[in-house]
Amino acid sequence: MNVKKQKILVMVEDDLAGIEIALKENLNPYLELVSETASHILFSGGKRLRPLLMILSARICGYNGDQDKKISTSFEYLHAATLLHDDLVDDATLRRGRKAAHLIWGNSAAVLVGDFLLARAGAIATGTDIIEVIKVVTDIIEEMSQGEIHQLINKGNIDLSESDYFEVIKRKTAALIQGACHAGAIIAGASEKEKAALIEYGYMLGIAFQMIDDLLDYTAETKDLGKETGADLREGKLTLPVIYSLAKANSSDHSWMKEIIKKSDFSVNEFEHLKTLLLKYGGIEYTEKLAEEYVAKAIDSVLIFKPSKTRDTLQMLAEYTLSRKE
Amino acid sequence: MNVKKQKILVMVEDDLAGIEIALKENLNPYLELVSETASHILFSGGKRLRPLLMILSARICGYNGDQDKKISTSFEYLHAATLLHDDLVDDATLRRGRKAAHLIWGNSAAVLVGDFLLARAGAIATGTDIIEVIKVVTDIIEEMSQGEIHQLINKGNIDLSESDYFEVIKRKTAALIQGACHAGAIIAGASEKEKAALIEYGYMLGIAFQMIDDLLDYTAETKDLGKETGADLREGKLTLPVIYSLAKANSSDHSWMKEIIKKSDFSVNEFEHLKTLLLKYGGIEYTEKLAEEYVAKAIDSVLIFKPSKTRDTLQMLAEYTLSRKE
Repeated sequence: MNVKKQKILVMVEDDLAGIEIALKENLNPYLELVSETASHILFSGGKRLRPLLMILSARICGYNGDQDKKISTSFEYLHAATLLHDDLVDDATLRRGRKAAHLIWGNSAAVLVGDFLLARAGAIATGTDIIEVIKVVTDIIEEMSQGEIHQLINKGNIDLSESDYFEVIKRKTAALIQGACHAGAIIAGASEKEKAALIEYGYMLGIAFQMIDDLLDYTAETKDLGKETGADLREGKLTLPVIYSLAKANSSDHSWMKEIIKKSDFSVNEFEHLKTLLLKYGGIEYTEKLAEEYVAKAIDSVLIFKPSKTRDTLQMLAEYTLSRKE
Repeated sequence: MNVKKQKILVMVEDDLAGIEIALKENLNPYLELVSETASHILFSGGKRLRPLLMILSARICGYNGDQDKKISTSFEYLHAATLLHDDLVDDATLRRGRKAAHLIWGNSAAVLVGDFLLARAGAIATGTDIIEVIKVVTDIIEEMSQGEIHQLINKGNIDLSESDYFEVIKRKTAALIQGACHAGAIIAGASEKEKAALIEYGYMLGIAFQMIDDLLDYTAETKDLGKETGADLREGKLTLPVIYSLAKANSSDHSWMKEIIKKSDFSVNEFEHLKTLLLKYGGIEYTEKLAEEYVAKAIDSVLIFKPSKTRDTLQMLAEYTLSRKE
């Protein structure tokens, strides 16, 4: 495990333990199948980044109640719901190193248990009795579903632009991470300035997080990633490393890449060659650089808060995003 | 068109027109595909029963604001979301006489546009700023998803009991109709007694509505129904007419029915013979009778309100449930 990760894990150990308990306690299904399917996706080594960010955001704004762990589950349930629905949409085979849920219990269970998790997320937000928190959660669901639909429409579109790419990831990924931070600030009764800072932090971190995720699809090993590399391309999903490289490629490389993208069934050698092109045309480097800029902005945005262990943790989490391998 | 239906339609003409406008105005998607897919399911001749019941429930409790049409869309969006997800789960081919959405736009769009509609339903409820209304909506999503999952688990189970059946339909159908009535009472600032009456009305009507729906799967014509008859059985979904008849059947008929239920691909003749058995063993009649009892209870439950055109409409709507052909 990398040193940064280890250091962060020590700092948030108690929070993570609290989140695990709360995730079990608040699931509340009356059926065994719901429990099984939801648990498969919920308790298979997720990073708990979203609930953790909500808790830290609340804390940095002075929250000292005892409802933060419970409320934070809303953001992990949302995340799990989208994983269930997206894996089905993408027909993914692996998730967190395990067989995707829809392949075990079928598409139907994946759809319906996903719906149940969306409902739980809404119910937990409603349980706060704070309209502003509920609005954050319903906005997230709206944004995420539209981001995913947008991505679906873009599939196989070779002419995708950088701005198309950002339009999608802002909705499908950043909205949830940003929303978690925002909700933390709200339950702490934060000032508008504090809220704005945490919204900014979450947005920047969310964008960087997705960019690194998209990068890992080309640079990671399947065993580290817990899902197959090259999956994006196999689904015709163009991400920044490819979009950038396509724009820079000479005409013969451009044609070759186009062919590869069009066929969902490329060989290991073809995939390896594509990776060398992404390096050659700078798509990998460009994505990394840009992600670094977003992380730097995330780190800056919490500087309005006075120095504290919580601020350090938020900054380290942002930094860690860049070096993660999974 | 049957006379009862025509009479009701005249009484609720303005409300229905207002609902149609509100459904268009509040959908609010930023993508064409969402609009197309959602419109396919939303604007293909739905009965608008749920939003209508919310509006009438509010009115009978003295509501005189101008937000009822808008809020009522939440319950039609919920309904449309579940139709999208359920048709996919059931792999249905027809819905409201048109090709099911998932067959036109694919499973992925059906899942994601369904999610979007769930989010819109939540957002509109949240827009009321009334926690109690929001809670009704999140409870509905939780109940409906679990009801559908329960139904999924029960598929092909030949030993299903009446109480298993009611457990499912109470969640998958009655929860939404009951919730719509409940929400109407809440936005009108109704008394607890009035709320309880409308919850009772919605519950009884919802149960009867589903029983008749299940009956129509055996007694209607595909052209009237807008979806295929025999679909339930083809999916291994046992409903009351079958459950009751199975329990009464002699051993040879019982074995034959069991065989038919087990194979998803029965002939027209086999289906016709099954229908004669449902008549012979009283499953059709029993379901009708029971639905009548539920409708009678629904009609009684609004007697706490003083006589009015609105009360008449609620009662006629309940009565109409029994004679509907689609």
